[in-house]
Amino acid sequence: MEPLYSGKAKSMYETDDPSVLRMVFRDDVTAFDAEKVDRIEGKGRYNAEICASVFEYLEGNGVETHFLERTGDAEMLVERLDIYALEVIPRNIATGSLVRKYPFEEGQELDPPVVVMDLKSDEYGDPMLNDDIVRALGIAGPGELEEIRDEALRVNNLLLEMVDERGLLLPDFKLEFGKRTDGEIVLGDEVSPDTCRFWTEGGRSLDKDVFRFDRGDLAEAYAEAAERILA
Amino acid sequence: MEPLYSGKAKSMYETDDPSVLRMVFRDDVTAFDAEKVDRIEGKGRYNAEICASVFEYLEGNGVETHFLERTGDAEMLVERLDIYALEVIPRNIATGSLVRKYPFEEGQELDPPVVVMDLKSDEYGDPMLNDDIVRALGIAGPGELEEIRDEALRVNNLLLEMVDERGLLLPDFKLEFGKRTDGEIVLGDEVSPDTCRFWTEGGRSLDKDVFRFDRGDLAEAYAEAAERILA
Repeated sequence: MEPLYSGKAKSMYETDDPSVLRMVFRDDVTAFDAEKVDRIEGKGRYNAEICASVFEYLEGNGVETHFLERTGDAEMLVERLDIYALEVIPRNIATGSLVRKYPFEEGQELDPPVVVMDLKSDEYGDPMLNDDIVRALGIAGPGELEEIRDEALRVNNLLLEMVDERGLLLPDFKLEFGKRTDGEIVLGDEVSPDTCRFWTEGGRSLDKDVFRFDRGDLAEAYAEAAERILA
Repeated sequence: MEPLYSGKAKSMYETDDPSVLRMVFRDDVTAFDAEKVDRIEGKGRYNAEICASVFEYLEGNGVETHFLERTGDAEMLVERLDIYALEVIPRNIATGSLVRKYPFEEGQELDPPVVVMDLKSDEYGDPMLNDDIVRALGIAGPGELEEIRDEALRVNNLLLEMVDERGLLLPDFKLEFGKRTDGEIVLGDEVSPDTCRFWTEGGRSLDKDVFRFDRGDLAEAYAEAAERILA
């Protein structure tokens, strides 16, 4: 069966129910606009189990997500959403592109957090947006944008509480939101070591930076992230 | 006498009065992060006369600026300000970097206007900011940022009225704001064909794009801009 949509590390398939999609986490890993690619055995499964666990935790704390149920090692059923062309990135510690682009110190705490929104567009290289550009491009209405931002900050607070109990830091992560047919805005896509930076308190990365910067064995890092987050 | 500060096209000198600076518009012209440079006889004078005229017009309409008086062909006295590290760019028509970075059509009208704020930093290449990053970098407080944005939009409305009477379009322009010692936020820097895009209704550029993209004689374009704006 052909996927409805295939991204860099996930594929989406239609199901018998037009409102439900099957989201399959593949073992592919890419970085730097897909200039660096590999396949890491087991990665899809770790991501699926972390993602399912995080979505269940968020749902249990009142955040609406597209997650329905896990249906296999590396797959889950999710609601079909009309996804906003936005990458919503809450940042709690300055690192990565924030430090390259701006005069922040590496590791500088950001409290209150900084929220960055990028245009989800391979063609344009995911450029950073501001509220006016979001409006002018018709990506989200002003009320929607505010709701997305508030919800991203609520998810951030909940994830900070969760990882803190596991002895992890959460420097930053990427969220995507979408609309149900009834207009309700809910969290979509995934929350996993592909889309979050997880640091141990000693500063070791348990996320895709291990692959990006050749910091060791990605499967081992994802296994450790899963072990901690599922504990 | 050594300038207090020398930028790409202007030099600032101290005067006997510590609260007053002499701003000299040089004939230098640079583009693309100073990769393209030249000297255009008369440019400093055109910029100074356009800038003085625009500042007088804005002051006459209730906008506080740093302008005090013109003291020579290519120079004026201005108040010394504590300048925010912000390039504030109101945009009325999509062109230039907006079209390169985002899926806007060249020439697309932006109504309401889009305001972009960039970090004023040669070291970091003037990256675009959002409100959270402005706050986290301590560039301006939330109230200050709102005031700067409102003032930029007020200046935009006044300039649109002015150029409309002269048969010109104003796709976008760059403003800088600073604080007086009493804390009041006022418009600083310059408003000139170096910092504004001016288009004739037929689409000819009367601004630095003539130099950037080799579209003819810069001095002639600036002379025509001056003639229209001073009319």
